[in-house]
Amino acid sequence: MIGTGLIGTSVALALRGRGAEVLLSDADEASLAMAVELGAGTPLSGAPAGPVDIAVLAVPPAAVAGVLQEAQKEGLARYYTDVASVKARPVMDAIAHGCDLASYVPGHPLAGRERSGPAAARADLFLGRPWALCPTQATDPEALEAVTGLARSCGAEVHLVDPVEHDKAVALVSHGPHVVSAAVAARLERAPDVALDLAGTGVRDVTRIAASDPALWVGILTANAEPVAEVLDAVAADLALAAAMLRASAGAGPDVADVIMAKVGDLLGRGNAGRARIPGKHGGTPSAYTLVQVVIPDRPGELARIFEAAGDAGVNIEDVSIEHSPGLPVGVAELSVRPEAAQPLAVALRERGWAVPVLP
Amino acid sequence: MIGTGLIGTSVALALRGRGAEVLLSDADEASLAMAVELGAGTPLSGAPAGPVDIAVLAVPPAAVAGVLQEAQKEGLARYYTDVASVKARPVMDAIAHGCDLASYVPGHPLAGRERSGPAAARADLFLGRPWALCPTQATDPEALEAVTGLARSCGAEVHLVDPVEHDKAVALVSHGPHVVSAAVAARLERAPDVALDLAGTGVRDVTRIAASDPALWVGILTANAEPVAEVLDAVAADLALAAAMLRASAGAGPDVADVIMAKVGDLLGRGNAGRARIPGKHGGTPSAYTLVQVVIPDRPGELARIFEAAGDAGVNIEDVSIEHSPGLPVGVAELSVRPEAAQPLAVALRERGWAVPVLP
Repeated sequence: MIGTGLIGTSVALALRGRGAEVLLSDADEASLAMAVELGAGTPLSGAPAGPVDIAVLAVPPAAVAGVLQEAQKEGLARYYTDVASVKARPVMDAIAHGCDLASYVPGHPLAGRERSGPAAARADLFLGRPWALCPTQATDPEALEAVTGLARSCGAEVHLVDPVEHDKAVALVSHGPHVVSAAVAARLERAPDVALDLAGTGVRDVTRIAASDPALWVGILTANAEPVAEVLDAVAADLALAAAMLRASAGAGPDVADVIMAKVGDLLGRGNAGRARIPGKHGGTPSAYTLVQVVIPDRPGELARIFEAAGDAGVNIEDVSIEHSPGLPVGVAELSVRPEAAQPLAVALRERGWAVPVLP
Repeated sequence: MIGTGLIGTSVALALRGRGAEVLLSDADEASLAMAVELGAGTPLSGAPAGPVDIAVLAVPPAAVAGVLQEAQKEGLARYYTDVASVKARPVMDAIAHGCDLASYVPGHPLAGRERSGPAAARADLFLGRPWALCPTQATDPEALEAVTGLARSCGAEVHLVDPVEHDKAVALVSHGPHVVSAAVAARLERAPDVALDLAGTGVRDVTRIAASDPALWVGILTANAEPVAEVLDAVAADLALAAAMLRASAGAGPDVADVIMAKVGDLLGRGNAGRARIPGKHGGTPSAYTLVQVVIPDRPGELARIFEAAGDAGVNIEDVSIEHSPGLPVGVAELSVRPEAAQPLAVALRERGWAVPVLP
């Protein structure tokens, strides 16, 4: 594992959990020491006795080709992969550096956190997440098989994608949304206090990824500049048009305003359609479960008692989320259950004294 | 309660839960019948015997003043409030309609869901949420006191805000982000399938509110056109500038590219600063709890057993969230506990056979 940041250390932890031996290296000694401390592996000191199975390059996009060249020169591993968030540029750089393309499988696990560095690493970071592998014409099938096995060992779902298509795809579902999230959050930097007082769950969700490390993201965006610019231009054009229509509607009579605002409605409708294409949890639709809400006092063991009551009623709770109530000593637990179990669960919880709103 | 949509029915349910008598009315008979069915109150048929304490107008922004005028003409209530997402326009409309301003307290609970209509209503929708009240110079202090009591009965936190300031604030933290979320989601409408395959948690969060009802939102945006247009223009300008800088950096040498991309980094940094101003759950910082992760097989009763184990170890789980693993029979539960309880919980769970990653 070359690079023990969030992703590198998480991959190492996941592989160690499967019993693999992992050697770690990082230019930053403190980062390496932390990863070792976390149990991610042992430090790679000097050259290993022989080539390892796979070298994972967990370095910024612009550094991949140089590190790959160096590692291949040392004969460090049989196969090589990287985890950078862009793929076309590392591949082109590797060609320019004269790297061996047969043993190199460009890769990108689609997982991350707002926090960075080895301390934020999680062995389970890749469980059920997509992991793109972008083999080239030159990639050795055995290399692809080995790296596919590595990704699956981390619990990820492997998707084979052309590097250029990959970069366009992540511009749409990751890099573009990231900059947009930052631009919305940036409006709040100098917003009056009352605006923050009135912040609800919507703006929290939209701006969650805006908390990420700017330096890390500048590296990613630089390496995927053109596809991200296309997405940002398209979003900016839609927003500027919406703004113009809002202003036009404000100055128009009611009938004309309705016609103008129908265009804004079209944008919102397209948003509905796009949102609906994002796969739900368990790969299914969110409507596969029914939500049962329970008001829970903030006292020890309350959730445990709810789960116990559900178990007694023969109901399996598929998912649970808790909405906290800032400043209030109560919360609301949303329990996801199979539709046929919702009513029995509601009855069972009410019988034991919990407030359960009437089911829709 | 005039209007039994999501908000009206939720307020009614919350008040009924506090023992209040609620009379319901809605132009849509099916909506009214559903609200009655849910236990939100009894239908208002004809004029009530005498004025009720408070009439809540839960109708679209453009309809508030007309409904207020009608209700006041009938002497329906001692005090009046509305729950529309904008405030300046209903107030100006009320003045234009010659309404009695002394008994009218303009209001806006900051709560909602992607689903709409009475079937999505929840008695707990306002628990711990902000509820803006926007009294004018003409508002009777007793009316303000009564409506403040109503909002607090629903569990909300009351914020007194000038109507114009309110509209600017919600343009920043609600209406603007809503259109931006839709614009990001709209990019996915015709995106290649592979882009959706690679969708992670980031784009899910950014586009969650894009699933909302376009017709409802056209009404809200129309009534707050200018402040929303300002936010959208500012976000569009930041995004267009970022796109231009990305393109410029792609054509520049490394040193110049670094200078250009530092500007994109500035936008991301402003995003960090803005995001950090949003208050956390329990009003405190997210770091008040430590996360303990547990890998959980998808089998009945697993979560119940985890809570039981935590209880046996004397640990109170403050919050729980489950990350599902599309296509895989396992998930990861994130348990929030007080920092001093994290290690004992991890040990207790490991002893009982669960996989708990090493704590940071």
